[in-house]
Amino acid sequence: MAKSKDRRPKASGEVAVPKAVVARLSLYLRQLELFVKQQRETVSSRQLGKALGITDAQVRKDLAYFGQFGYPGIGYRTEELAEGIRRILGTDHTWPVALVGVGNLGRALVGYRGFPEQSFRVAALFDSDHEKIGSTYEGCTVYGLDDLSRVVAEEGIMLAIIAVPADCAQQVADQLVAAGIQGILNFAPTPLSVPASVHLVVVDLTVQLEQLSFLVAGANKRVSE
Amino acid sequence: MAKSKDRRPKASGEVAVPKAVVARLSLYLRQLELFVKQQRETVSSRQLGKALGITDAQVRKDLAYFGQFGYPGIGYRTEELAEGIRRILGTDHTWPVALVGVGNLGRALVGYRGFPEQSFRVAALFDSDHEKIGSTYEGCTVYGLDDLSRVVAEEGIMLAIIAVPADCAQQVADQLVAAGIQGILNFAPTPLSVPASVHLVVVDLTVQLEQLSFLVAGANKRVSE
Repeated sequence: MAKSKDRRPKASGEVAVPKAVVARLSLYLRQLELFVKQQRETVSSRQLGKALGITDAQVRKDLAYFGQFGYPGIGYRTEELAEGIRRILGTDHTWPVALVGVGNLGRALVGYRGFPEQSFRVAALFDSDHEKIGSTYEGCTVYGLDDLSRVVAEEGIMLAIIAVPADCAQQVADQLVAAGIQGILNFAPTPLSVPASVHLVVVDLTVQLEQLSFLVAGANKRVSE
Repeated sequence: MAKSKDRRPKASGEVAVPKAVVARLSLYLRQLELFVKQQRETVSSRQLGKALGITDAQVRKDLAYFGQFGYPGIGYRTEELAEGIRRILGTDHTWPVALVGVGNLGRALVGYRGFPEQSFRVAALFDSDHEKIGSTYEGCTVYGLDDLSRVVAEEGIMLAIIAVPADCAQQVADQLVAAGIQGILNFAPTPLSVPASVHLVVVDLTVQLEQLSFLVAGANKRVSE
């Protein structure tokens, strides 16, 4: 949840955006892309919210973090708002991504059909297993970690996914940072330490399972966004 | 984010808890378990929050959804609060879990070391591939979907994980609901429709990648909890 003090511009002009707002931008974008596909040209905050089970006030408040998007009496132009959100999320261009760890999880992620193809492209795979190095998987070459800096520079890679076992995740993170990676998505079930200049997003599957057990355990519980 | 109206008890006595609060309960629990391991007997909301980069006010507000846990002049008793949170999350006992889809993702999840073993145990695997049915993986038997109802009843399974491709996820969800499953964790990149009595938690990896690109794309951005 946002703490009100976080909403004030910082000395640097920086505004902290609650994580939940960024997550909802992703949902708005998916829904808007669907509307565009359906050739729907405009949508109100109420209609957009309703499609996602979110109030219109929440939609307007979330978008207000990033500027003015609607038109009085018209609402939002679907294609324009989708483009605006892609610009905010940085997905108006394709990010080549490095994926480290070609085990079951890594292979599942290369083949994962859920990533928007125009936005994220697994550009290179890395593994420490000599049996795997040099092979290709879903059209991607598997490199050794010795090649990390070179491939990251050659492919202009800024984002990486860590899908290695917990006990070598920190070492991999250190190598990614040294290679110039600026953002890491961590699937390894262990906390990682990276410099403040490198962004870290953690996929914690336990949190999601515990959310489910919370809901199922209590007959009388409800969760809101 | 919580809408204030969600905090009011509903006619049924039900209170909607923001998803972010439930997610933070998981984080509090991890940290408390660490404190218990370090033989630390008490902790203040300030110390607990500080260890996680959360304000003390937020810690108190989150816990206040569920009752009174602290002692004046002492703070929280670590073991007692951990037990309290496990009770709230429903992880004070072990949930046998059904995992449907023994592809790369399914195999990664069976072997995932991040799940707290005392709370979640993959009790049975299911797949439609006759080559896989009858084999075992990490000590778990792979059953066909025809055996779903029987195995779910025999093992007392209430939670299931869907790790199948998007195009057969809804069919699997329908079969899980028919077999009496009460909570589903969905990894398939497609929206699922289930009855209101069945709880659904979605793992959307695109949201997490977009959060990362949001952070890396904007030099001047910050995300708060």
